[in-house]
Amino acid sequence: MDTVSFKDIKNAQENIADSVSTTPITYSNLLNEWLGHEVFFKLECLQKTGSFKLRGAANYVQSYYKRHKQLPKAILANSSGNHAQAVAHIGAIYNIPVKIFASDNISPVKAAATRHYGATLMTYADRLLADAAVSKEYEATSDAVWISPFNHPYIIAGQGTAAVEAISKVSDIDALVIPCGGGGLAGGSLVAARHLSPSTKVIAAEPLAANDAALSLRQGTIVKLDQTPNTLADGAATPSVGKHTFPLLQQLDDLIEVDETMIIYWTQWLQHLLKMHIEPTCAMTMHATTRWLQMQKNKKRVMVIISGGNISASSMRKIWHDDYLHQIPTL
Amino acid sequence: MDTVSFKDIKNAQENIADSVSTTPITYSNLLNEWLGHEVFFKLECLQKTGSFKLRGAANYVQSYYKRHKQLPKAILANSSGNHAQAVAHIGAIYNIPVKIFASDNISPVKAAATRHYGATLMTYADRLLADAAVSKEYEATSDAVWISPFNHPYIIAGQGTAAVEAISKVSDIDALVIPCGGGGLAGGSLVAARHLSPSTKVIAAEPLAANDAALSLRQGTIVKLDQTPNTLADGAATPSVGKHTFPLLQQLDDLIEVDETMIIYWTQWLQHLLKMHIEPTCAMTMHATTRWLQMQKNKKRVMVIISGGNISASSMRKIWHDDYLHQIPTL
Repeated sequence: MDTVSFKDIKNAQENIADSVSTTPITYSNLLNEWLGHEVFFKLECLQKTGSFKLRGAANYVQSYYKRHKQLPKAILANSSGNHAQAVAHIGAIYNIPVKIFASDNISPVKAAATRHYGATLMTYADRLLADAAVSKEYEATSDAVWISPFNHPYIIAGQGTAAVEAISKVSDIDALVIPCGGGGLAGGSLVAARHLSPSTKVIAAEPLAANDAALSLRQGTIVKLDQTPNTLADGAATPSVGKHTFPLLQQLDDLIEVDETMIIYWTQWLQHLLKMHIEPTCAMTMHATTRWLQMQKNKKRVMVIISGGNISASSMRKIWHDDYLHQIPTL
Repeated sequence: MDTVSFKDIKNAQENIADSVSTTPITYSNLLNEWLGHEVFFKLECLQKTGSFKLRGAANYVQSYYKRHKQLPKAILANSSGNHAQAVAHIGAIYNIPVKIFASDNISPVKAAATRHYGATLMTYADRLLADAAVSKEYEATSDAVWISPFNHPYIIAGQGTAAVEAISKVSDIDALVIPCGGGGLAGGSLVAARHLSPSTKVIAAEPLAANDAALSLRQGTIVKLDQTPNTLADGAATPSVGKHTFPLLQQLDDLIEVDETMIIYWTQWLQHLLKMHIEPTCAMTMHATTRWLQMQKNKKRVMVIISGGNISASSMRKIWHDDYLHQIPTL
């Protein structure tokens, strides 16, 4: 099986240099004072298309080009979220037709953005039907590539470039904390951190309501949820991890399951403290961060990857229904 | 009467250089495509304390020091919002005791931030009582300065530095659009723009529900609202402009009143498009921007000052109660 090496991530950095932004890193003095530690945030919400997903998609297309000496003739992808916009955008850059297979509940803004980049959007009653449809279309066509949201070495290597940027910019990181959906970002980040900074702990966060990765790690085999998970952290609502990501996730130092209340709590606080429009999917990493910090005796330096900033109005309504800004974060 | 000159603003730039950040400028490709114009955003939400208010407060203290060869012995200020945090922060920097007079409905996070900087916070049943209390305290003490939220040449000159940075960074701005509360930011921006770029139109936006500036301009004299205005744009909910700001506001090219629905509409869209946690007070400027752009025949370049990013949970709840992301912005 293809594994992902640090060299693949370095190649990815070259591959995506023209199409992807180097995103800034920020922090909150107030939060650091309250926690008594240093927490940095790598802002992939400011990445083009509003999430890290562009890194993987850009690396996929450029890696394909290097290997086959030609671009894909057409691209298929199944996603109702950030991967859809990323693939649509990269298709527009390379002038490749893109078909996106999404569930009907794709948010109107994500649908509009996906179409804005020129992709054809096909919608289905639910996520599993969309996944089945892309598979069927892929079988039926000979000249299209199917870009998985996470389960491909090119994708994992592309996503790993965010961690390379983060670790290169801020030295002596004691822990790198990443959200885990299908495991592309978590897996790529793990490979990057193990090479660049072996003593850095690599910790992932997953919604308790979509804890397929945690179940898989406990059982030692990939567990697939049989229903579409219901969580505000929609970027991590994947029913299962993949064969390429699972072996990497098995090397994580920890994987923390986060309940919906803590997801909302940290989304409110990170939006407030960082003045950024931050997705619940990445805000949940702060719960994993504080859990880890509670066990530390000395002052630590943590890097959190803020994976995206695309949030539907209905999610924002749920996030801000109750007031959690009354309760100041502490350890 | 002291007027504010461009030289005062240049002096302010020097005065505040050590305590205030130069904030970034951003834009949205999608928004520009939809509107057919170029709109830039000066991100004072990323200023220390989360708003432009620090500029005026920092300039006040440093100007006082230059004039009196000593720092103020104590600082008083009346504010339930961004001015409170700014004054508290500047007091902490210079090690000057600060007393803030606020209304009871100051949001818990703003109160916590104000106290975090070491200020004493006194609260009153409403804004007018807090204003009366600061006035009484000022009369009773001989060694304190009272830093007005907007009605002082030092404050106006300090706030004008944001426009200087914006105009210096992006050339050929056809219109500069600013929120108007008491008129400190709008007045300072006007002086800066008239000097640096005389052909740039300077346009302010004000909540229709707190339209004292518009009423004042129509009547040619300062009109004071007799009730505390009720608007989501709480940073512009001032009952009246001041004698120092009014003559500057009279030189604006236009002042647009914005209803609550448009304030909410643009807060949702700017948070979504810019991935920034942006206050309703500055999002309302986009309604003034589109109103102005509708009258233009050629492609224009607009600079909007995003004044702050401090939003209470209850305001966020109101902002995201309904979904306006269904309706894509157009002219």
